[in-house]
Amino acid sequence: MAEELRLFAGVDAGASRTALVLGDATGRILSRVRGGPGILRPGRAGAVAERIAGLLKQALGASGPVASLEALVIGAAGAGREAERGALEEELRRRVESRAVLVTTDAAVALQSAFPEGPGIVLSAGTGSIAIGRNREGTVYRVGGWGRQFGDEGSAYSLARAGLAAVAKAEDGRGPKTLLTARMLEAAGKVSVEELIAWARLARPQRVAALAPVVCRAAAEDPVASLLVQAAAAELAHHVEALRERLSDFAIPVALSGGLLVKGSAVRDALVARLKAAEPPVNLVDRGVDPASGALALALGLRP
Amino acid sequence: MAEELRLFAGVDAGASRTALVLGDATGRILSRVRGGPGILRPGRAGAVAERIAGLLKQALGASGPVASLEALVIGAAGAGREAERGALEEELRRRVESRAVLVTTDAAVALQSAFPEGPGIVLSAGTGSIAIGRNREGTVYRVGGWGRQFGDEGSAYSLARAGLAAVAKAEDGRGPKTLLTARMLEAAGKVSVEELIAWARLARPQRVAALAPVVCRAAAEDPVASLLVQAAAAELAHHVEALRERLSDFAIPVALSGGLLVKGSAVRDALVARLKAAEPPVNLVDRGVDPASGALALALGLRP
Repeated sequence: MAEELRLFAGVDAGASRTALVLGDATGRILSRVRGGPGILRPGRAGAVAERIAGLLKQALGASGPVASLEALVIGAAGAGREAERGALEEELRRRVESRAVLVTTDAAVALQSAFPEGPGIVLSAGTGSIAIGRNREGTVYRVGGWGRQFGDEGSAYSLARAGLAAVAKAEDGRGPKTLLTARMLEAAGKVSVEELIAWARLARPQRVAALAPVVCRAAAEDPVASLLVQAAAAELAHHVEALRERLSDFAIPVALSGGLLVKGSAVRDALVARLKAAEPPVNLVDRGVDPASGALALALGLRP
Repeated sequence: MAEELRLFAGVDAGASRTALVLGDATGRILSRVRGGPGILRPGRAGAVAERIAGLLKQALGASGPVASLEALVIGAAGAGREAERGALEEELRRRVESRAVLVTTDAAVALQSAFPEGPGIVLSAGTGSIAIGRNREGTVYRVGGWGRQFGDEGSAYSLARAGLAAVAKAEDGRGPKTLLTARMLEAAGKVSVEELIAWARLARPQRVAALAPVVCRAAAEDPVASLLVQAAAAELAHHVEALRERLSDFAIPVALSGGLLVKGSAVRDALVARLKAAEPPVNLVDRGVDPASGALALALGLRP
């Protein structure tokens, strides 16, 4: 019975939501809770730590009174740099009683979830985009994930932004007319292009990224939207191709993750076609990717 | 002598600096002063008005004690929407004694400066980009200028951002190696790509835009930089072509303006080649464009 009191937690802190799972030493999940965005940016470590501490309190409450954790692992979007990881670890140690605390990237915990051991690549496209993979030798590389200003090609934010640029171009005659104009105005509840762009300029990236499905749905009917979807798929395929080259493993299994790549999405369909047409074809596998569970698995590994 | 006491002022408020000229009723320039950025954004009207009032005080001081202005015209970057224009006019009326106050776009005052009357197009590419033109019938249209998030294609900020994306892609093997990596690191004083991107992510747009000349200079030696320069020139050429179509005047004279299009710039050279190759060729004219003087001319027109 004493064994059951040893508790571990894993967290997936993303641009649009944060998920936390609490498990016992056997890896059994005791509870799962969710909250708002937990993306890590310079100067935001305290706020993210606060959110995670709140979720942990909620999860522990659901599992009865427990004094402390054995290990806590957080996979956070925006945690690519050591400075941000260190800042969040420090803020968490102030707020959470846990013998071990580790912050890594959202991509790393997604990889752990899809491929707990051995080689594999996870390509993730949600608000942002990134690919991460591990080869037979255990070497881990990432490709992309440079952030929304100068990277994240093929992400929902990039696709929505390209859609808005196409709307602006159509409006002043630099580009062809597109169905996207009416569809985006409707989705954002605006009456003029000027109003739409002004709104989008001040909207949070997740709000803008939420327009990506509008582009996906229009692709079947609209040549402009179709080109944007194809371009996003091409960018995502480049991630996989660069990564399998870098890992020196062309047979490596590849799993897809993230809101832009859910089944039925036009970007997913276009991407799968490209990956199958690659030389040699990409070894796509159907894996459920649950980053929070991946983080929990890593936490169990920290205190076996 | 009484005539000489009637004073008018014109202001060019841009992303990187604000210039103010003070003139008399004959259009003679009495003084010219400069200050920091004056770009208009939602919520920033008070700060911009404060900057302009300070410059005006400085200019009036230089012209001796004068009680009030006849008219003040401001051409401001970011003033494309009526809401922002109205807010700035109101803030200015609180701070400045002037019989007439008018806020318009930076592009409109640049057009006034290059083509005081009759038809003409000014294509401007600095931190942002926009084209504005007036036809023989006096109709004024603009193309582009949608802002840095979803527009401003071919601007210094867009070009620098594309350069940084190319550096990120080269770093993780999605794109070819490029000289831009070393050149941009050197220009920004950073030692790693990770550090460069992290810096650029938090830097103000003008700081990022200041890397555009690095891309221009590398274009002669580096195929990646050369492609980016060609793409920027193509985007700028689209502005002119869409505008002369809209104005129904293919013989309309076109003047170039802005920091990215100074003589000797690779983007200017590539753009000029495209405009000359257009069908029919674009009627490029060599005009000095001084937006602050254009604003002064509009101010004189308000109180003739």
